[in-house]
Amino acid sequence: MKDAQTIPEMMTEIGKRAKAAAAELGYATAECKHAALIGAADAVWANRAQIIEANAQDMDYARNKGLSPAMMDRLMLDEARIQAIVDGLRAVAEQPDPVGEVLAEWDMPSGIHIRRVRTPLGVIGVIYESRPNVTADAGALCLKSGNAVILRGGSESFHSSRAIHACLVEGLRSAGLPEDAVQLVPTRDRAAVSELLTMTDYVDVIVPRGGKGLVGLVQREARVPVFAHLEGIVHIYVDKAADPVKALNVLLNAKTRRTGICGAAECLLVHQDIAATLGKELISALVQAGVEVRADPALAGPGTVPANEDDWGREYLDMIIAARQVADVDGAIAHIRKYGSNHTDCILTEDDATAERFFERLDSAILMRNTSTQFADGGEFGMGAEIGIATGKMHARGPVGAEQLTSFKYLVDGAGAVRS
Amino acid sequence: MKDAQTIPEMMTEIGKRAKAAAAELGYATAECKHAALIGAADAVWANRAQIIEANAQDMDYARNKGLSPAMMDRLMLDEARIQAIVDGLRAVAEQPDPVGEVLAEWDMPSGIHIRRVRTPLGVIGVIYESRPNVTADAGALCLKSGNAVILRGGSESFHSSRAIHACLVEGLRSAGLPEDAVQLVPTRDRAAVSELLTMTDYVDVIVPRGGKGLVGLVQREARVPVFAHLEGIVHIYVDKAADPVKALNVLLNAKTRRTGICGAAECLLVHQDIAATLGKELISALVQAGVEVRADPALAGPGTVPANEDDWGREYLDMIIAARQVADVDGAIAHIRKYGSNHTDCILTEDDATAERFFERLDSAILMRNTSTQFADGGEFGMGAEIGIATGKMHARGPVGAEQLTSFKYLVDGAGAVRS
Repeated sequence: MKDAQTIPEMMTEIGKRAKAAAAELGYATAECKHAALIGAADAVWANRAQIIEANAQDMDYARNKGLSPAMMDRLMLDEARIQAIVDGLRAVAEQPDPVGEVLAEWDMPSGIHIRRVRTPLGVIGVIYESRPNVTADAGALCLKSGNAVILRGGSESFHSSRAIHACLVEGLRSAGLPEDAVQLVPTRDRAAVSELLTMTDYVDVIVPRGGKGLVGLVQREARVPVFAHLEGIVHIYVDKAADPVKALNVLLNAKTRRTGICGAAECLLVHQDIAATLGKELISALVQAGVEVRADPALAGPGTVPANEDDWGREYLDMIIAARQVADVDGAIAHIRKYGSNHTDCILTEDDATAERFFERLDSAILMRNTSTQFADGGEFGMGAEIGIATGKMHARGPVGAEQLTSFKYLVDGAGAVRS
Repeated sequence: MKDAQTIPEMMTEIGKRAKAAAAELGYATAECKHAALIGAADAVWANRAQIIEANAQDMDYARNKGLSPAMMDRLMLDEARIQAIVDGLRAVAEQPDPVGEVLAEWDMPSGIHIRRVRTPLGVIGVIYESRPNVTADAGALCLKSGNAVILRGGSESFHSSRAIHACLVEGLRSAGLPEDAVQLVPTRDRAAVSELLTMTDYVDVIVPRGGKGLVGLVQREARVPVFAHLEGIVHIYVDKAADPVKALNVLLNAKTRRTGICGAAECLLVHQDIAATLGKELISALVQAGVEVRADPALAGPGTVPANEDDWGREYLDMIIAARQVADVDGAIAHIRKYGSNHTDCILTEDDATAERFFERLDSAILMRNTSTQFADGGEFGMGAEIGIATGKMHARGPVGAEQLTSFKYLVDGAGAVRS
């Protein structure tokens, strides 16, 4: 930030530079973008000592601010985590380049030939919180997909993000790409976020990565389109035709493998016919695994806690699960429609017709059958990496990888074709 | 509109009903939707006398309001135009049903099988002006794609739109689909538009169809996502390697076939090396065809008018064209980037490398080579019908048919797969 420059002036300058870089990046070769990403990975590894030093500054700041141990852990970088960042950059580098891919082509009787070809979106604004690795992940995915990116990290990870960003710029420079392709907002001032959210002339889409507070702010204030990620209020419905062994394994994995991720199960729905049998067994297994089960009266048992109305539609991100009896698959569908967040919902059943009804009548970004909801992840979907999971329906949905950061254009060839 | 109900109350009720209808429509069978569209087509034809009568009321209103002859012509319905509406409904009925289409499917090493399946967007708001046929076209495309629609026609076409809407409802009823799947806002009050644009709880996307004024209003006020259609500032660049015969035919067709459509050429760019030869011939042909050519000094000749700075980036929708000399293809690209609207732009050249550069470095929704820009149309692209042409890059782009009114969801099958 230059002296005497206001935040709006600074952000406008960043926006203009991003737009100019995007125009160049749109036709950068796959080789060039690959080289920039490999260059960035090398730079991160070569500069790991400086990055850890910068991170120590952030950790001091966070400690003084009284951040929770969980938040401190998200912020912390050590050599192993830096290795993971490097691996991530290399993995994105090796992914196929989406830009220029012919999505469809066809001839028309008029003699024209039409191709639908992938093209970058333009400029992407990424607003995130304490995890400094998002700087590298988001920067890499945007670059891979030919987009310029404006990164706005959390104030806690200010120094770490700066150090990682410098490495991305080194990669761009080494590959001869415009350095403005990946910019980091150089101030902790929150006014920069408000500015970024309304820069419709320079920013094509905003991707928020963070908790409810951040996402809510973004959705309220943004005038730029947003790839929404609401909560992951993940339901698992155990049908009367569920296989007991699969049900037990999937449910425990979905709830307990990692509780803090958006694909973790938050609510168990049980068909009334098996509530007293398999239902009770599952709940007992959860209790034994250390999960607090907030059950409705029909499912109450040893070790459970009574559920309130508040427990339906709640994202705990903790060793807690709500549990409710439903009449049948339609009862489960009705509950999920009312309380769900269209992220990921799962049915456990051996009955194909019931599973199909669940798949047809619900409209979550991800619907699963006999599968742990912890698979709701770009890597597990084979996308290599993700910039987030979108719960909206416009443009991107589910895990958002490089492909979904693109649009398309039509290329039409004719031999002097005129319309009659 | 019920007595004593305010506009916001009325619109909220319409929104709620649309959302409920959308939930049902999302899994309506292809046969059912087909039957509703055929039923609507039959009803329009059977009720043509009443529709023409309703249209006469609108024509009176428009005459009193002093509408231009061009606007009056857009509004007018006769038996031939009603036949075209019927044909349009039947054509959409016969299109393949996009909902449920498997866009991709793959297995992961973890044992899960992933399908990406088309799903409707939900509720679409369509705001249009005087053309009453949009009621049928937009209603049909939304229904085909499994979306509920809230139609808001122009005040001039109030009675005509009502009469056509009644036929669509008859089709829905005959097929056993919810009548709320296609609703028409039953008031001329403009407050209903402002309400529709901000109903984020009930409306998933807004499609504006109309002139600059309407589209500008929508883009300023909307809190709901919009499929933007900016102006069609269509450029044709005549390269030094252009074929003179193709150039003449394509240019004349692109400018004069119909001047009022968004794919009509508005600006001619000519390579300096052929400005004095082919360039002058083309301009002379335009002048002879009755086109007012607003030329820069390099292209001025008999019958041309001097161009002002204002003429670059202008949508005339009339027998007028701007003409400018450029140094080469890069000069054309720079001009189009500065003044274009990302709708449709065309290069006339026999040189593959030059055409590729034009295709790569520009990012219009449609780029053409040796093809009349009047082909920028959903029908000519083989989409059957279009609800509009989107110039934005989010979600929909170019001609928007039934397919682009859909989103997708992931359906994941496992045999008890758990994540390690």
